[in-house]
Amino acid sequence: MTHSIIATIKAKSGQEAQFLAVAQELIAAVRANEPGCLLYTLSQGEDKSTFVFMERYADDAALAAHRGTEHFKRLGRAMGAFMDGAPVIQRMVEVG
Amino acid sequence: MTHSIIATIKAKSGQEAQFLAVAQELIAAVRANEPGCLLYTLSQGEDKSTFVFMERYADDAALAAHRGTEHFKRLGRAMGAFMDGAPVIQRMVEVG
Repeated sequence: MTHSIIATIKAKSGQEAQFLAVAQELIAAVRANEPGCLLYTLSQGEDKSTFVFMERYADDAALAAHRGTEHFKRLGRAMGAFMDGAPVIQRMVEVG
Repeated sequence: MTHSIIATIKAKSGQEAQFLAVAQELIAAVRANEPGCLLYTLSQGEDKSTFVFMERYADDAALAAHRGTEHFKRLGRAMGAFMDGAPVIQRMVEVG
């Protein structure tokens, strides 16, 4: 069962570029190291401080593996320094 | 520039299966006919009446083409009968 995640993050005003740089490092690490991650993209809203990760995982194990990686823990913490509040996470199951 | 869309839809209570059947018909038509559409998936939230389309388009033209297709217009209308209110559409630009 494919799992999908939408993670919505507000960057601190004026720190969008710093947030984006760390996020792009995370994206590269996920794509290079997580074969069970089917999609890991970052989008920017019309409000330039709003960023959205769109993520798809082949199964529960792939999602759990993602959360356990060194790159996710390290770069997730690093991104946190540039966030305005906690991310809003929607966890869903793909049905089509 | 890749465009991404997140469309969040609330189905009418008790009509989730009918909504899903039409949505899956739309997904099949998009995948069969829109080479500029890079992703078109539907996910269901923990709240079973909440559905989320995750969409990616290669460029502006691909997004405009999607909205102009016969299948999008016809099946979009058909889905509307099973929706509780209007969809919430987030239109974004992919940055990673």
